[in-house]
Amino acid sequence: MQTPEKKSCENLQSVLHNEIPLTRTMQISVTHCTVNKVELHAPLEPNINHKSTAFGGSLYSVAVLCGWGFIYHQMYLHKLSGHIVIQHSEVDYKLPVDGEICAVCELDNELDDRLALQKFIKIYQRKGRARIKLQVNILFAGQSAVKFIGHYVVHR
Amino acid sequence: MQTPEKKSCENLQSVLHNEIPLTRTMQISVTHCTVNKVELHAPLEPNINHKSTAFGGSLYSVAVLCGWGFIYHQMYLHKLSGHIVIQHSEVDYKLPVDGEICAVCELDNELDDRLALQKFIKIYQRKGRARIKLQVNILFAGQSAVKFIGHYVVHR
Repeated sequence: MQTPEKKSCENLQSVLHNEIPLTRTMQISVTHCTVNKVELHAPLEPNINHKSTAFGGSLYSVAVLCGWGFIYHQMYLHKLSGHIVIQHSEVDYKLPVDGEICAVCELDNELDDRLALQKFIKIYQRKGRARIKLQVNILFAGQSAVKFIGHYVVHR
Repeated sequence: MQTPEKKSCENLQSVLHNEIPLTRTMQISVTHCTVNKVELHAPLEPNINHKSTAFGGSLYSVAVLCGWGFIYHQMYLHKLSGHIVIQHSEVDYKLPVDGEICAVCELDNELDDRLALQKFIKIYQRKGRARIKLQVNILFAGQSAVKFIGHYVVHR
């Protein structure tokens, strides 16, 4: 039987593949999709550069979509719909990624993060427009190889 | 007869297409490549998202490669070679792009910019490692739709 988590992964993956054709070429898959965490993977081969590491534009794309997917899933859990748009981002490339790309957007246990998410949902419910800042890490060999900060706006 | 500028465009485009396969799917082309300016184009269709505008990851990829190409061409003009790596970037998405993507990295006439480029080349020649910060704009309907700032490092 399909678990709810597996269904959420499949749903988000089909949204990405249907709405952004380039994600199919990049072979992006959704490997985790719960209230606390969204994780996206992409193999190296379609995203490779001349140094046999992941192309910076591919790393960015997987990261920006991981944050997008996190918001998409939060909206889904609150039975909300809207347009999720990236407005500003900052990226630190700390280490080269010479294997599979793995991006993680995770709510940590800090109260501030949980309150910010609750506030975002409440403002969206009231005004039909809200902003949220998320951090996504590309993990490689147990470390954060790329740190991505995304400022997203969601509107009806 | 082929002009030197046309040859530079073709050379940079073949470097991008050979070294980063995803640029072929994105159909990135080099439309200007001179000492003062590098311009990259990509059609909307392979880079589209669900709102029929350009995907933020594609906009980023064209911008980061435009800056990369600008440095590549400067190195070529100075008969230098090395690895050009993006280290940090900041992106402002100001307007949606619902047509062809056009990224421009241009030396403006401010003395500071020209001095920074000269200093970058001199440091690289002396130490084999140098940093440079570049601005790339994605232009749409005569305006800057996306502003990209990239901090690149070049090393032997």
